[in-house]
Amino acid sequence: MSCPFCAKNEDDFFMKTAHFAAIYNLSPIVPGHSLVIPIAHVESLFALSEPDFQEMMLFSRKVMRFLCDYFHTDAFDWAIQEKPPAGQSVAHLHVHLIPRYEHDLPEPGAWYHRMVEQEKQQIDTFARQRLSIPRLQEITYKLKEAATSYFSHHPNI
Amino acid sequence: MSCPFCAKNEDDFFMKTAHFAAIYNLSPIVPGHSLVIPIAHVESLFALSEPDFQEMMLFSRKVMRFLCDYFHTDAFDWAIQEKPPAGQSVAHLHVHLIPRYEHDLPEPGAWYHRMVEQEKQQIDTFARQRLSIPRLQEITYKLKEAATSYFSHHPNI
Repeated sequence: MSCPFCAKNEDDFFMKTAHFAAIYNLSPIVPGHSLVIPIAHVESLFALSEPDFQEMMLFSRKVMRFLCDYFHTDAFDWAIQEKPPAGQSVAHLHVHLIPRYEHDLPEPGAWYHRMVEQEKQQIDTFARQRLSIPRLQEITYKLKEAATSYFSHHPNI
Repeated sequence: MSCPFCAKNEDDFFMKTAHFAAIYNLSPIVPGHSLVIPIAHVESLFALSEPDFQEMMLFSRKVMRFLCDYFHTDAFDWAIQEKPPAGQSVAHLHVHLIPRYEHDLPEPGAWYHRMVEQEKQQIDTFARQRLSIPRLQEITYKLKEAATSYFSHHPNI
């Protein structure tokens, strides 16, 4: 089975570093739900060298900061699932970055079930509602523009 | 209200760095459920300086590596909740590190609800089952011994 994250390219990235990219989720569980992925295929958090791990974590915090600004909140979930017993379905390392609001879901914890379901569906079926490709491209383009502007005004973040 | 994580001290830590410590959860949702916390009171992930953030993330990966070895698994959840809409109840930054197994919970996603409930109960009530203090101290002591041994055999992790 081909890896859906390896199929991503420059057009899908709204922020990037040398080895990592931020993409908007094809089936976001709430608005702003994004992922940070290594551009090369890496499965495990432990497979990253120390400099690459540091690059990924710093970059993830930076993306989270931007998403909080863009989606006007200071609450977020940040999660990594490693291996299927933990809820990982796409075997390409990814950090979920999820801006949150009061009452955005029936209860604060509901995001996790949705995330696990969303990961399963991404691979298995087309049952779950997805963004159309043009809509996903449009959001990605907007986020890319906004991130460029945000970091030009906040160069030290 | 006093901060339960600020009340922790050396005896509660099974691993530590200059600014961060690993503690075993008083109400673990599965065996091994631990937390990495800043020793000083810090509320937000964004309040950490870049070197402190890097120290926390590298340390968390190291603790996760040890927990996976100790609890004989390679699956885990790693999660940060920031602010109550995201499920955070204790307003002292903490990374949940949760070793996972196939069928350890009714479904892979069930940990999140339990974690949120556990955080609420830690503050609000004594309703949820907790470890006794002697039992918690005993586990902490065992983990501290095991971590010392593990890293003496794996100095480059």
